[in-house]
Amino acid sequence: MSDFKSRLLDRLPAWQWLKHYNTVTLKSDLLASLIVIAMLVPQGMAYAMLAGLPPVMGLYASVLPMIIYAFFGSSPTLSIGPVAIISMMTFATLNPLFEVGSPVYIQAACLLALMVGVISLLLGMLRFGFLIQLISHPVIKSFIIASALLIALGQLKFLFNVPLQTNNIPEFVLSVFEYIGLMHWESLIFGIASILFLVFMPKFFNLEAVKQRLGASGFIIKSLPLVLVVVSIALVYFFNLQQVGIKTVGEIPSGFPALSMPFWNLELVLQLLPGAAMIAMISFVESLSIAQATALQQRSQLNSNQELIALGAANIGAGLSSAFPVTGSLSRTVVNADAGAKTSMAGVLSSLFIVLVSLYFTGFFRDLPLTVLAATIIVSIWKLVELKPFIDTWRYSKADGLAMWITFFGVLFIDISTGLIIGIVSTFILLLWRISRPHIAEIGLVEGTQHFRNIQRHQVITSAKVLSIRIDEDLTFLNSNTLKGFLINAVSQKPELEHVVINGSSISAIDLSALEMLEDLDNELRKLNIQLHFSEVKGPVMDKLQRSKLLNHLSGKIFLTHYQAIRELSPDIT
Amino acid sequence: MSDFKSRLLDRLPAWQWLKHYNTVTLKSDLLASLIVIAMLVPQGMAYAMLAGLPPVMGLYASVLPMIIYAFFGSSPTLSIGPVAIISMMTFATLNPLFEVGSPVYIQAACLLALMVGVISLLLGMLRFGFLIQLISHPVIKSFIIASALLIALGQLKFLFNVPLQTNNIPEFVLSVFEYIGLMHWESLIFGIASILFLVFMPKFFNLEAVKQRLGASGFIIKSLPLVLVVVSIALVYFFNLQQVGIKTVGEIPSGFPALSMPFWNLELVLQLLPGAAMIAMISFVESLSIAQATALQQRSQLNSNQELIALGAANIGAGLSSAFPVTGSLSRTVVNADAGAKTSMAGVLSSLFIVLVSLYFTGFFRDLPLTVLAATIIVSIWKLVELKPFIDTWRYSKADGLAMWITFFGVLFIDISTGLIIGIVSTFILLLWRISRPHIAEIGLVEGTQHFRNIQRHQVITSAKVLSIRIDEDLTFLNSNTLKGFLINAVSQKPELEHVVINGSSISAIDLSALEMLEDLDNELRKLNIQLHFSEVKGPVMDKLQRSKLLNHLSGKIFLTHYQAIRELSPDIT
Repeated sequence: MSDFKSRLLDRLPAWQWLKHYNTVTLKSDLLASLIVIAMLVPQGMAYAMLAGLPPVMGLYASVLPMIIYAFFGSSPTLSIGPVAIISMMTFATLNPLFEVGSPVYIQAACLLALMVGVISLLLGMLRFGFLIQLISHPVIKSFIIASALLIALGQLKFLFNVPLQTNNIPEFVLSVFEYIGLMHWESLIFGIASILFLVFMPKFFNLEAVKQRLGASGFIIKSLPLVLVVVSIALVYFFNLQQVGIKTVGEIPSGFPALSMPFWNLELVLQLLPGAAMIAMISFVESLSIAQATALQQRSQLNSNQELIALGAANIGAGLSSAFPVTGSLSRTVVNADAGAKTSMAGVLSSLFIVLVSLYFTGFFRDLPLTVLAATIIVSIWKLVELKPFIDTWRYSKADGLAMWITFFGVLFIDISTGLIIGIVSTFILLLWRISRPHIAEIGLVEGTQHFRNIQRHQVITSAKVLSIRIDEDLTFLNSNTLKGFLINAVSQKPELEHVVINGSSISAIDLSALEMLEDLDNELRKLNIQLHFSEVKGPVMDKLQRSKLLNHLSGKIFLTHYQAIRELSPDIT
Repeated sequence: MSDFKSRLLDRLPAWQWLKHYNTVTLKSDLLASLIVIAMLVPQGMAYAMLAGLPPVMGLYASVLPMIIYAFFGSSPTLSIGPVAIISMMTFATLNPLFEVGSPVYIQAACLLALMVGVISLLLGMLRFGFLIQLISHPVIKSFIIASALLIALGQLKFLFNVPLQTNNIPEFVLSVFEYIGLMHWESLIFGIASILFLVFMPKFFNLEAVKQRLGASGFIIKSLPLVLVVVSIALVYFFNLQQVGIKTVGEIPSGFPALSMPFWNLELVLQLLPGAAMIAMISFVESLSIAQATALQQRSQLNSNQELIALGAANIGAGLSSAFPVTGSLSRTVVNADAGAKTSMAGVLSSLFIVLVSLYFTGFFRDLPLTVLAATIIVSIWKLVELKPFIDTWRYSKADGLAMWITFFGVLFIDISTGLIIGIVSTFILLLWRISRPHIAEIGLVEGTQHFRNIQRHQVITSAKVLSIRIDEDLTFLNSNTLKGFLINAVSQKPELEHVVINGSSISAIDLSALEMLEDLDNELRKLNIQLHFSEVKGPVMDKLQRSKLLNHLSGKIFLTHYQAIRELSPDIT
């Protein structure tokens, strides 16, 4: 393969599947796309509403981004489009700046998508994909759980039909006290009925008896939200429920918006920048994990920067087609793969169906009650709210558990973006804290072996003339003083000391601060006629030490193994 | 020894030397204290001026802090008092808030010392001494060099006798253009003559011929600044140089100020807090390294938190006795030790001499020209300005070198405090960056041994069915994705793969993000009929893994050594 072709393939993974496309794969892709559509239409509209936008924008957000990802992305089954967390973050970014749902709010949502796209594209092209690692799993998990709680609470305003505030818990509690008297009972009953339908119907179709009569019931369960939508539209239409105060989606402009650049100016861009950067980060986290699983199963290489470029291009497409920020949806990707999607063509086909819907069937959704859309959001999001990850994480590691709680309370009690940032910063601090408190042990020889172990945990042989130390961490400015302090105190307890041997088997790096500490230590020990030695220094560390003065002046030696050091320095005990 | 006594000893190290005090030690201490005094008087006055304060406050700052440290500190020779860097930081903290030298400025300097003391004391009592490690050596070095440059530039205002600004280089350049025409030639000539005296007289006394005639010339060299002070006072007095416009120290209130609480209110405390915290940190860095060297040489234990408590008490003493922030002075400590000081009594004695000076001899300093004090500062500080550390550091490590330059330019072009903070933050970012890019290698067996080495560096045996991976870093959220990406790509290149073995010899910690990555990886590999194994897992890591689900579900095994793993999984190659 020529170099040009291979580079083209890197940038356009679609090449691969387009070459071998045939009617068999088309048939599976077509079926999968129909099943995904049944989920995508209600989800798209609901998530648009979640972002504070007209429901029809959820349809727009499912078209161009999906088609663009099909050409640039590596996962054939990834379904890209509106996703709850990203919609929530969009809301959290725009809500403080503009009146929700106003024309300027809508324009800003498109601009936000464009900015998310440009940021992702740039990061991908600059090969900065590794930045994703700045967010640890506990922080992401806690962020998703806390956001899901806020999302669910946020939907109560449609169920109760009163303007509750849900930027954080204190605001929510205050506004509940303010509006609880104005609650609209009809909307609430309709909403609760929808929730019960969505919760109990799947259980019914999962009963063994029902399953056996119907054959497979999977597709029915997946399309229950669509059934609910159709039924509730019919109820509103036939019983004229708008008259009792049930709010509905209302008139939707039919047709598909022309591609256009959203309104922008520098001030607006700067206002949206922090939000856009965080949305870009979280949307990458969400879709990369899906793409990684796909790559491993297909035993194909994965270039995470290329994924970032694909996601960036998809969001630019969203921004230019009157939509809002998108990313890969785990739930729809699973359905798509289960339904037999073979290539990205499945995604392209579902996009085309959505175009048909927005061209000819938008009138149909006019009478869809908002309380029903809110119910679908609450049911789908509530599955994410769990306490168990907090308990499991705390049990495994106090530091990770602490980061989780910090993120959780940050999101719930300040706001979604600040909570995420506090969480991320807390993981850095906790990591630096751990590095600054390394495990340091005096070690001794296990009798009859060549192994050395902690003298406080094991029965080992030591010598009054030799002090053996092992530190289980890279030596950096954060812990070099800890090691020096440990050595000062150890030396003070051994009046006959002649040799100190530092075991380097766990040291993968020595920074300048640690190097200078070792040089100082060597000078100070020399005055006491004590020699400083090292054993089991790793190759890359040795390479670096050779560029320093330490090795020239060192009073002692570098031994290949700790056993050799002890055999030479203290022949009596080996 | 009773528990009470041992705890008293921890808090009051003075107990030890007071018990054994006698006339022999008194004689050495007395001599040393006289030699230190010769340095301390001009230094103290000069550093007070550096802090923007009346020179006499430099005398006050050398009394109570020194006496207090003698009782609480662990180093018998450490000379505590005014120090150039800390005076400069005091100036940088107060200069933006108050008019330099005004009564409120002076009160704020006392309050600052008190706050530095309280912060240090609290940190010591809470055992937070390890926080000192947040500042790496390259940052400290660069901070000192850049500050020294600014200090030297700052003295030019006394040499030129015009109000030059020296908060940063751009301000300095602008004010030079503004004031260069108003320069006072007589002051400049007097100042340059003083500089030449201080630079060339030591060279003269160091000539072999002169040394032999005088016997030891060390003491003479040490007291040259005092000689200069006396000579210049005489010149001003006899030739009435004030009349040509030479500025002098002026009338100094004789007597010693009564202990008093400096004026304070909450607003002022909050304004001074960031500066106080940084001064506390730097003053601890400065004196701890001296105390560590002392402890090692005496083979005594060192409790760094106790040092912090001693330094805190000393600064509280400074705040209550009309002085400004103090710390251990390396230059005076060296002189003190060289002059034969045996115990902290040497410091106490020099304090008592200073009291005598401030009670009876302040009138003597009335005619001391400011340009001469400025000259002593420039000469003593200029030794700190070097380029070599930048070159050496850069050669050893690009990350440390980068941190140095960032600190340097931050201090010179923004200001001393911001520069320090930028420098510290940059080291954190560079550390996280390094951790996020660990060294990962596929390893193979070195023929005829049980050792495994990087397949790209060494001639080793591998098997198509087994992939051996070693990562030279703890597994955390910062690098777990890097490892996963490496594995995905390695798996894609080995179609016959059946086993993946991760060598844990360099892994001292696995955080939750990395644990979950491993669990995911195990699940994904299982679907491809590939088993995941570990070898050489360290004890503490194993303890932690046993609290997780990974070990229960793991498709493969944990092997004690990598060789055992390969022998079992791929018997053909061993």
